[in-house]
Amino acid sequence: MARIMALGEIMLRLSPKGHRRFVQAGEFDVVYGGGEANVAVGLSNFGMDAGFVSKIPQHEIGQAAVNELRKNGVDTSRIIRGGARLGIYFLETGAAQRPSKVVYDRANSAFALAEPQEFDWDAVFDGCEWFHFSGITPALGKNAAQICKDACAAAKKKDITVSCDLNYRKNLWTLEEAGEMMKSLMPYVDVLIANQEQVKSLFGMEAASAEIKEPNVDYSGCQSLCVQLRKTWPQLDKIVLSLRGSVSGDDNYFGAAYDDGTGFVHSRNHLIHMVDRVGSGDAFSAGIIYAIMNGYPAQEAIEFAVASGVLKHSIEGDGSMESVEEVKALAGGDGSGKVQR
Amino acid sequence: MARIMALGEIMLRLSPKGHRRFVQAGEFDVVYGGGEANVAVGLSNFGMDAGFVSKIPQHEIGQAAVNELRKNGVDTSRIIRGGARLGIYFLETGAAQRPSKVVYDRANSAFALAEPQEFDWDAVFDGCEWFHFSGITPALGKNAAQICKDACAAAKKKDITVSCDLNYRKNLWTLEEAGEMMKSLMPYVDVLIANQEQVKSLFGMEAASAEIKEPNVDYSGCQSLCVQLRKTWPQLDKIVLSLRGSVSGDDNYFGAAYDDGTGFVHSRNHLIHMVDRVGSGDAFSAGIIYAIMNGYPAQEAIEFAVASGVLKHSIEGDGSMESVEEVKALAGGDGSGKVQR
Amino acid sequence: MARIMALGEIMLRLSPKGHRRFVQAGEFDVVYGGGEANVAVGLSNFGMDAGFVSKIPQHEIGQAAVNELRKNGVDTSRIIRGGARLGIYFLETGAAQRPSKVVYDRANSAFALAEPQEFDWDAVFDGCEWFHFSGITPALGKNAAQICKDACAAAKKKDITVSCDLNYRKNLWTLEEAGEMMKSLMPYVDVLIANQEQVKSLFGMEAASAEIKEPNVDYSGCQSLCVQLRKTWPQLDKIVLSLRGSVSGDDNYFGAAYDDGTGFVHSRNHLIHMVDRVGSGDAFSAGIIYAIMNGYPAQEAIEFAVASGVLKHSIEGDGSMESVEEVKALAGGDGSGKVQR
Amino acid sequence: MARIMALGEIMLRLSPKGHRRFVQAGEFDVVYGGGEANVAVGLSNFGMDAGFVSKIPQHEIGQAAVNELRKNGVDTSRIIRGGARLGIYFLETGAAQRPSKVVYDRANSAFALAEPQEFDWDAVFDGCEWFHFSGITPALGKNAAQICKDACAAAKKKDITVSCDLNYRKNLWTLEEAGEMMKSLMPYVDVLIANQEQVKSLFGMEAASAEIKEPNVDYSGCQSLCVQLRKTWPQLDKIVLSLRGSVSGDDNYFGAAYDDGTGFVHSRNHLIHMVDRVGSGDAFSAGIIYAIMNGYPAQEAIEFAVASGVLKHSIEGDGSMESVEEVKALAGGDGSGKVQR
Amino acid sequence: MARIMALGEIMLRLSPKGHRRFVQAGEFDVVYGGGEANVAVGLSNFGMDAGFVSKIPQHEIGQAAVNELRKNGVDTSRIIRGGARLGIYFLETGAAQRPSKVVYDRANSAFALAEPQEFDWDAVFDGCEWFHFSGITPALGKNAAQICKDACAAAKKKDITVSCDLNYRKNLWTLEEAGEMMKSLMPYVDVLIANQEQVKSLFGMEAASAEIKEPNVDYSGCQSLCVQLRKTWPQLDKIVLSLRGSVSGDDNYFGAAYDDGTGFVHSRNHLIHMVDRVGSGDAFSAGIIYAIMNGYPAQEAIEFAVASGVLKHSIEGDGSMESVEEVKALAGGDGSGKVQR
Amino acid sequence: MARIMALGEIMLRLSPKGHRRFVQAGEFDVVYGGGEANVAVGLSNFGMDAGFVSKIPQHEIGQAAVNELRKNGVDTSRIIRGGARLGIYFLETGAAQRPSKVVYDRANSAFALAEPQEFDWDAVFDGCEWFHFSGITPALGKNAAQICKDACAAAKKKDITVSCDLNYRKNLWTLEEAGEMMKSLMPYVDVLIANQEQVKSLFGMEAASAEIKEPNVDYSGCQSLCVQLRKTWPQLDKIVLSLRGSVSGDDNYFGAAYDDGTGFVHSRNHLIHMVDRVGSGDAFSAGIIYAIMNGYPAQEAIEFAVASGVLKHSIEGDGSMESVEEVKALAGGDGSGKVQR
Repeated sequence: MARIMALGEIMLRLSPKGHRRFVQAGEFDVVYGGGEANVAVGLSNFGMDAGFVSKIPQHEIGQAAVNELRKNGVDTSRIIRGGARLGIYFLETGAAQRPSKVVYDRANSAFALAEPQEFDWDAVFDGCEWFHFSGITPALGKNAAQICKDACAAAKKKDITVSCDLNYRKNLWTLEEAGEMMKSLMPYVDVLIANQEQVKSLFGMEAASAEIKEPNVDYSGCQSLCVQLRKTWPQLDKIVLSLRGSVSGDDNYFGAAYDDGTGFVHSRNHLIHMVDRVGSGDAFSAGIIYAIMNGYPAQEAIEFAVASGVLKHSIEGDGSMESVEEVKALAGGDGSGKVQR
Repeated sequence: MARIMALGEIMLRLSPKGHRRFVQAGEFDVVYGGGEANVAVGLSNFGMDAGFVSKIPQHEIGQAAVNELRKNGVDTSRIIRGGARLGIYFLETGAAQRPSKVVYDRANSAFALAEPQEFDWDAVFDGCEWFHFSGITPALGKNAAQICKDACAAAKKKDITVSCDLNYRKNLWTLEEAGEMMKSLMPYVDVLIANQEQVKSLFGMEAASAEIKEPNVDYSGCQSLCVQLRKTWPQLDKIVLSLRGSVSGDDNYFGAAYDDGTGFVHSRNHLIHMVDRVGSGDAFSAGIIYAIMNGYPAQEAIEFAVASGVLKHSIEGDGSMESVEEVKALAGGDGSGKVQR
Repeated sequence: MARIMALGEIMLRLSPKGHRRFVQAGEFDVVYGGGEANVAVGLSNFGMDAGFVSKIPQHEIGQAAVNELRKNGVDTSRIIRGGARLGIYFLETGAAQRPSKVVYDRANSAFALAEPQEFDWDAVFDGCEWFHFSGITPALGKNAAQICKDACAAAKKKDITVSCDLNYRKNLWTLEEAGEMMKSLMPYVDVLIANQEQVKSLFGMEAASAEIKEPNVDYSGCQSLCVQLRKTWPQLDKIVLSLRGSVSGDDNYFGAAYDDGTGFVHSRNHLIHMVDRVGSGDAFSAGIIYAIMNGYPAQEAIEFAVASGVLKHSIEGDGSMESVEEVKALAGGDGSGKVQR
Repeated sequence: MARIMALGEIMLRLSPKGHRRFVQAGEFDVVYGGGEANVAVGLSNFGMDAGFVSKIPQHEIGQAAVNELRKNGVDTSRIIRGGARLGIYFLETGAAQRPSKVVYDRANSAFALAEPQEFDWDAVFDGCEWFHFSGITPALGKNAAQICKDACAAAKKKDITVSCDLNYRKNLWTLEEAGEMMKSLMPYVDVLIANQEQVKSLFGMEAASAEIKEPNVDYSGCQSLCVQLRKTWPQLDKIVLSLRGSVSGDDNYFGAAYDDGTGFVHSRNHLIHMVDRVGSGDAFSAGIIYAIMNGYPAQEAIEFAVASGVLKHSIEGDGSMESVEEVKALAGGDGSGKVQR
Repeated sequence: MARIMALGEIMLRLSPKGHRRFVQAGEFDVVYGGGEANVAVGLSNFGMDAGFVSKIPQHEIGQAAVNELRKNGVDTSRIIRGGARLGIYFLETGAAQRPSKVVYDRANSAFALAEPQEFDWDAVFDGCEWFHFSGITPALGKNAAQICKDACAAAKKKDITVSCDLNYRKNLWTLEEAGEMMKSLMPYVDVLIANQEQVKSLFGMEAASAEIKEPNVDYSGCQSLCVQLRKTWPQLDKIVLSLRGSVSGDDNYFGAAYDDGTGFVHSRNHLIHMVDRVGSGDAFSAGIIYAIMNGYPAQEAIEFAVASGVLKHSIEGDGSMESVEEVKALAGGDGSGKVQR
Repeated sequence: MARIMALGEIMLRLSPKGHRRFVQAGEFDVVYGGGEANVAVGLSNFGMDAGFVSKIPQHEIGQAAVNELRKNGVDTSRIIRGGARLGIYFLETGAAQRPSKVVYDRANSAFALAEPQEFDWDAVFDGCEWFHFSGITPALGKNAAQICKDACAAAKKKDITVSCDLNYRKNLWTLEEAGEMMKSLMPYVDVLIANQEQVKSLFGMEAASAEIKEPNVDYSGCQSLCVQLRKTWPQLDKIVLSLRGSVSGDDNYFGAAYDDGTGFVHSRNHLIHMVDRVGSGDAFSAGIIYAIMNGYPAQEAIEFAVASGVLKHSIEGDGSMESVEEVKALAGGDGSGKVQR
């Protein structure tokens, strides 16, 4: 029923307060999120009609995950309820030179063990115009991969735009496994969201020039990759390649290149002091989908998407709780952080 | 190396603050505990030299569980480190007519998947005088059951006293499975800790009279069960049967009967306003083990064990952080709660 | 679009932590609720398709109120967004002999200042079967009273069942004002929810016998009131009269009588240790509406409604987050508070 | 400058959250209080012009103690600033059968080490009508005892009413030391606040009959003590004897007897569910001082004082933050705990 | 009675914890503050005898505001108690590129609705030497503007020094309204606190050169404005113009220029990493008032005022809890943040 | 029994939450630590067998300190239990230009009042290879100084390596007292940990060149000091001199020089954004001890030690909870703070 449907797993995220280490934690902050769910949440907070499809246990912990989606206005009516457990990940937020640390406990989740036939794609895609998934979903196991493929095929049959964020996770599968699987899914993809490193390691495509970061960002490598991607998968409509550089443990540069089929543009680069890095890529994805669905010109679109990703770094939790106005203000150049009163 | 060794699983317990429901929780209190670990913690806090043996993942969440044991002075040197996950249970603390609720996520834990040959019982029991386990351990799967049996056999060979708390958990196995398994382990047991209901449902033994609770507790049914238990398993040295009655959602009666081989006694009954019910049975077990190891006469022993269990209801978390002095004061009759200043 | 629509104001509730007094509070717990919104939340958590109609400011505090409703699955699509402020009430939770205290700051809320013509009742009631409001709504001012009357009239035209909880609030209007207004609304009401005191003070009807409370509750007064109410408003289909008695500052008795048109029954009486009293009447209303819509026989219906109200006392916040299974278990007699594991 | 001056020590109180044990505490709640300071706070919250005199370190922890007094409207202009440390006590709040526990770390506090000549009693008592101290003050050491004596003598010279709460603390001195000291101070006292046990153990006076508690409180023992006290110290104007009985760990009975010189009365008895017992005696003292200063008749006075003490049990922290209206409502019989809205 | 009196509104500030967004907040931090109240608090913490005059409701939320002032040693004896509500503002603290956000709910506050005749200026200014107000006070409505004017006139009659912080708030009134009103009040002002932007937009005065910020701050524009201000309002004794520049969302530059009637000086510029920006202007005002009242030479005075403002950015809440020693250390150049031990 | 023994005092540290000032604190975070205890904790978390010797009260606050050590795997079996109080220090964490502030309340602690004869050094050093102490220990008083000397002498007799961190604390003793004492202890020291300033002020040794900090760190001054130190105390085996520079209130540079007897090396310099500065020197000491005991070559050793110190700045609390892997990663150059997933 929703205009946009995202498919994937939603997990319970448990984090010590502030900068505490796991072994110091007497309590965990509770957040429910996951790559594709975060995209749905971001789009819904942009005022779009977004839904999420997955399999989530019937018990109260599963219900809390569903409630978090509903709270953000995401349509949950297509979620299958059942299975034994919600995937969990423990997140220790780093500081300065100490990196954030993730301990995964996501095996055997309800979604990872779901059967392909449990999903009725005709019903899921009823009234839908856009389908989004990321490389995490097919990485969750054979069943999840099949479910992902079925969804892509069903979407294509209904002429639904398909976007894919490559999103490689080394703890879920090897580069070889990921490369093979993602190559098999690429023919369904209209909008590809990735970065230079993923394109190289999964698809073996070399950029014309090395990735150079701030202060002189060089996007020519990105452009050469777009050419190669389009040659291999000519159905590709739009390609977005993000670029992140580390200044210090707490600070990053973030920008992106965009080939919308009519030309190649890139955003300005933002220096980011990070509060919570998780979900910034998903906020970027939500940003580009919003921009495309609302017919933004290329330059405006990529600035909006990057600003959406940048802003997410200042928000705790997985989901991007941003308004279009806030993203536009940043995309338009106001990053002063002045009190609005 | 420790005088007392307990075998079992230690889990991560996650609870909403106060009386919050799961769906209201923005944070979870973090506790590490489990039936047999709680007994080891309780004994160590009584000043006894207690150790715990299990298999716990190497990662930081596993380390936090080990740290909790070390913090309480429990010897952790015999714990095997490895495996993927720590069992988890979510606990919603009830109030008044609303019962506490547990959502288990303990399948496939490092301990449940441990192989029997990973345990070197000669080393574990080096210098040991007492071995404790509960019915939860063999319920965790075939491997765990075998590990439990191996431990019992090794303990017996070394003339170590074996105590067992029947502790039936309906979400882990059926009454039939449990009855069969526990019957096969009973020949190793010297000290049995149970209650009327468990003895009936697992061993099929009927009490001479129905369990009558406060204000006129009738322990004659317990006495008749002791006779039957001794007849079936003549090696049994001591039998302890606890008795709990519910007055209201927040209030219970708690007492126990004790057949120490020389006679039958029972404790006085305590009315308990419950802060945290989890682990009270384990505190009771720790109490009776302490009393026996320190040569308490029967009446004093059972009053001490019951007071230990009663006191635990006032302590948050799984572990019983009580001193011998505190338990003795309550066993001796001071339940006034007067400020100690 | 929802089967059930409730009309009213949703407020921001600010409470010191635990039992702290206002002057001791360095932080406030944040809850969004209100009489009729609580009924919608309760029904949605029972699995019913419930919606809420009101006027709520567009700003983030207003959005947070909408999110709380969405989180609980309440349809918010009919809410008008606009106006300047959300009503606020400060709640200090009492303990023992110290009563809870409310400081209201609800004047000039977006809903209280809403114009009757802003509401399109045809759209609101599209597909609706049941309309619920309480005496709080018309008490909010002339506009709100007119909106309430419009809603009643529109509901009647569409043959929608109308339920009303008298819910007199002395800080909003006088007994005379309330009596006059509620009498003018009664002709629209099918299901009346009230208590002896309200019926007497608003409608001037005397019970045949004084209200006698635990241990010997006497419901004959209730029965005589039902006769009088039906005589005055013959269109009344069902009448529910709750009865509450105070045992101590922390403890109440709660029960109810029910005249469903075919006979007069009453529930058993529950002794309640109160965690949060706010919203218990609304949970009772949600319970009786659920029971009627699901065709429960009279005795079962009133036991369900009372159990729903009783259970709410154990839940923090305004909204009743209960499942049908939990309410049924308590209605069926299990108030033991035993851990469910 | 204040009408009422209290002399004593104010301490930093550190308590684990809720019912946590000391060894479980990752944070301590911070409260500043002490017997006589609590009386000043209570009187100020009743709208009286109360001051506190002591010696408090200049550093920020000392300043925080001063701020707490100022926050409650207590005049702090007569406090001497200096010395090295504020006395500390650690308080673990008990639950059910587990008693609250206090670990004192109050030795060598700024006040305990203050020199008598640091205090200018003429200035302190300028405009003063009432002087209050308790048995804790002279127990703090030779200096404190002398300061206390100096204050009493100066007060008497200025015709200021002197009230004394015997308040024996066994961890500060022996019964013999306390008895000797308090006897030497009694000639200065106009209003004596005590209980049967203290009068017996410090002054060796036997009640005519044993203290009998709820349900049949017998105050005849109190009356006989009043006769003996007046015989020994004929200058005594008024005598108040409180009476506390323990029902369970969480519940107490509390009442008091009062000989105001014209007759002997006693209050009704209150059953109290205790949230925080510390400071309830001080709230009782504040109550009787308020009642006397405002000319309450004997029965009304003792009911007010007892209600003030009872209400304090429901308030976290040392200080009694109660209004005259609240105390009067309870003294007048409303202990229903009904929400005030 | 106090040497310094400030007039204005004190509000309840509600903020999500840390960097949480409004829609993520399950609790709000509670702070009581407001422009002029913050100045009084700052001066009192500098050891000055400062008071605050306003109208504040009698209820507990109002009392908590009064308590916060008392806690900081501010004289509250001249505050009028009454009216229905305390103004509220919701503050979401930004991070990095995400600006802080304020939602105001201050209409119809007790102070905004106060009547001019409720204030007895003779009594308020008894013993007073300095009167401070800001542009927020007359912006609160016709009554507040009149009260402000009355206060100015009364102060002038008593030869009290009057300081005014222009403090324009665009959500309270238009630039035209503000300009007209502030111009009418300027003849009463001895010490003007403002910045270039306000002077231009309210008074239409153009600086000789554009405001240039770090690294080469150019204060010549400020100097030219001082000349114009003195020409228009020759009674002006001292003029302080602050200057703030944004480096990033979290970082600002802050400095100020000062024309004390004998010459023109400016402070060095501080780079600030901001913890809480609210109240930094008020801390700056408190600093310059303190410096003038204590006869600091011009250069020392402006360095002190700027350091006071700078330090406030590191303190959570509205009020500036700084000591003279701390401000002097920073003014003197120690901004190293080394641990003081 | 442990391979490494550290001697010193462990204290209770009490800190307001986050950046709160002392006077704003309604709760304190509770941490147990102290210079030498932190070194033992750091070494144990590196997997070394470390113990701590001290005197700690028997009460629960003392027990909590012992538990913290046990939690981190530190051997506490040699700690003497007794005495009245644990030393306390209050820590206010600064921000930006506002420095952190410490209020000490450590006088008369159990350790400071311990008698030299209470320690049985033969037993303490049984099986020990390394003894560590810092300049804080002998600064605690005559007894503590004697205990320290006894320990050094006993260690030397057993051929145990002795390391000493000069660690001068100006609030404990004067430079003269410290210089005299530390000079008398130097003959026992094998491994000296210090910085230029301490060597100069305590031993009167002048560096060949001034300390120059980032961006061009000049370690030639350090080298000249090593020559002088070795000349005075030829038994010195290794010398480590750390170097810290302040960039802003929140940011420091940190590096170190190392003369291991075979040559002189220095580490690279790290820019640190500080979360908690306390204990970073101790983490540095733990690092160098670990590196030496594990036979690291000089360059690798000093990089490891510095990385250990750097990492500690990102960890809240006194103790360094770091793994060897984490320190190595940073020593090896990865300070990017990238999420590890």
